[in-house]
Amino acid sequence: KRIVLLPGDGVGQEVVQSAREVLDAIAEQFDHEFSYQACDIGGAAVDCSGTPFPAETEDACHQADAILLGAVGGPKWDQNPSHLRPEKGLLQLRKSLGLFANLRPIKGFSQLLHASPLKEEVVGGSDLLIVRELTGGLYFGTPSEISKDRESVVDTLAYQRMEIERIVEKAFQSARLRRKHLTSVDKANVLESSKLWREVVEEKKAEYPDVTVEHQLVDSAAMKLITNPTQFDVIVTENMFGDILSDEASVLTGSLGMLPSASVRTDGVGLYEPVHGSAPDIAGKGVANPIAMILSTAMMLRHSFQMDEEACAVEEAVQEVLNFGYHTADLHIKGGEQVNTKEMTRHVV
Amino acid sequence: KRIVLLPGDGVGQEVVQSAREVLDAIAEQFDHEFSYQACDIGGAAVDCSGTPFPAETEDACHQADAILLGAVGGPKWDQNPSHLRPEKGLLQLRKSLGLFANLRPIKGFSQLLHASPLKEEVVGGSDLLIVRELTGGLYFGTPSEISKDRESVVDTLAYQRMEIERIVEKAFQSARLRRKHLTSVDKANVLESSKLWREVVEEKKAEYPDVTVEHQLVDSAAMKLITNPTQFDVIVTENMFGDILSDEASVLTGSLGMLPSASVRTDGVGLYEPVHGSAPDIAGKGVANPIAMILSTAMMLRHSFQMDEEACAVEEAVQEVLNFGYHTADLHIKGGEQVNTKEMTRHVV
Ligand SMILES: CC(C)[C@H](C(=O)O)[C@@H](O)C(=O)O
Ligand SMILES: CC(C)[C@H](C(=O)O)[C@@H](O)C(=O)O
Repeated sequence: KRIVLLPGDGVGQEVVQSAREVLDAIAEQFDHEFSYQACDIGGAAVDCSGTPFPAETEDACHQADAILLGAVGGPKWDQNPSHLRPEKGLLQLRKSLGLFANLRPIKGFSQLLHASPLKEEVVGGSDLLIVRELTGGLYFGTPSEISKDRESVVDTLAYQRMEIERIVEKAFQSARLRRKHLTSVDKANVLESSKLWREVVEEKKAEYPDVTVEHQLVDSAAMKLITNPTQFDVIVTENMFGDILSDEASVLTGSLGMLPSASVRTDGVGLYEPVHGSAPDIAGKGVANPIAMILSTAMMLRHSFQMDEEACAVEEAVQEVLNFGYHTADLHIKGGEQVNTKEMTRHVV
Repeated sequence: KRIVLLPGDGVGQEVVQSAREVLDAIAEQFDHEFSYQACDIGGAAVDCSGTPFPAETEDACHQADAILLGAVGGPKWDQNPSHLRPEKGLLQLRKSLGLFANLRPIKGFSQLLHASPLKEEVVGGSDLLIVRELTGGLYFGTPSEISKDRESVVDTLAYQRMEIERIVEKAFQSARLRRKHLTSVDKANVLESSKLWREVVEEKKAEYPDVTVEHQLVDSAAMKLITNPTQFDVIVTENMFGDILSDEASVLTGSLGMLPSASVRTDGVGLYEPVHGSAPDIAGKGVANPIAMILSTAMMLRHSFQMDEEACAVEEAVQEVLNFGYHTADLHIKGGEQVNTKEMTRHVV
């Protein structure tokens, strides 16, 4: 299996190193062979090659079976023009590889629930998956431009029916592997794109009679994620709605530093990255929490390599390490022991 | 002062009646004269006149100094085609009157904080105002259509610089009357419209040197509203971002049934409505909570009629009634007494 490593910026470097060590352990124990190729992306790539998504990186990613990304961005590049911003590299990577489905599982660890801003009786037991459309919608439609005189501006939310169909299918399939409940989120009382979205969901549901389907307006979903997060199993939604809702959902369980994500397409090729950012304030200090990256790696094993047993082994190792009370500086476990990135990685290995 | 009453659907009828009784008390005590004209809107208007926003309603609103709206919508009209949906009436009303600034203050009542899904130490003390652009952006741009063959769809997020300027000015002015901190929310790392938005905010801030300004990405703001709501004073943002964030924020303090809103333009004409919906399940039972509507009426007194003292009198009356422990069935106050809509209104009066 060819894996491209894109450490990117900030703590990305450190956590991708952790992922690699965990993969080496899996390779040894399960007798697999993983080959690694590291490439630049984001701010690091801007600094070295003058672009956030160099051609060599793009080529390598197109050859890969899967990609592990650390994080992109940092204050150093915040004032750059858009084509030289680290985020642009990530957007181009998703688009270039056609990674249309962003999967964001959100599940609390009982040891960490105390860190949730929500009351335990509200958030306890919540376990949801947000399926966000990732290569269409408002973030990619054209025209998207400011007029020459800077007096007006336009962005475009556009979809082909096929783009909606494939993400909705992915969501139904994901629901089937879980608690079989799908919430489709839109703004069908205002947006035409949401009406087509809802039409596609209604059409597809005939093929998944075992999955119950519900439609929710995005404003209402933003409320219910907080007041009643346990009502959700799988949520499917447009790119920008998904961006907002998945970040909102990511803070509910108090485990932000632990959350993985996958961006995949139908043939199984995927990009795996932690939900947290590049954390420039602690970068290079060896104290970053590698668990979100490690759990992203488990998602890679499962989704891109069909190595379900291996994925479970990684996830169980993480759970056990938490059971022992080990945690990095961003977290607290009562009666636990604080460790650094390397130690945490070693414990999981 | 000419006030148009638009009870609309569901509990709208009951709560607008409460607002009127409170206004009558204010008129008497402060020696004002208010004239009322009731008109149909929403589902009620669809049923009577075949349109959610009849011409007579539009005419009356154009003559009014201010408008009080109860709520629109209900399952009865949910399957209607878009032009016959209750919400359409509300959108047309906002657009027809040019009510470009939606003001949503969110402040907890200490008696009700226990009902918040958030921990008291997280949400306690939060007091924010969301200023949402209401007549432009993604909800009004054209094209907004599904193709004839239903294979593709487009919505448009468009702004004129002037539209951004006036809402940003409104937000700066609002911040000046509060804690003088403005958070502008956008997605400037992806959207061109957000870049122009940020440019306008940066330009305008020179005119308000007493107000501190911060930019936040919408995904990040969706997180911080939950993890650290007290960091916000005034938030200003695009129509659809504002729709999502203001509903998200509305559940933080456990006082959803208490939250008012105003939709205004520069000359002071405004539309005032509770944040909660038409609550068809309890409509007609006389148990709806009228406080959000009553506090919306206080906003009307302040913003449209410059009757600050009168507005404060209403707000203080509400606070006192809560202090006495009176609450409607949607709420609970420890050691308090449950009352119905009429009784609650009488207590406030
Ligand atoms: C960096 C940014 C462009 C990106 C997005 O909005 O897609 C990020 O917020 C994410 O959610 O992965
Ligand atoms: C009813 C709907 C069109 C409306 C909106 O999104 O503007 C509502 O959600 C609101 O926030 O006032």
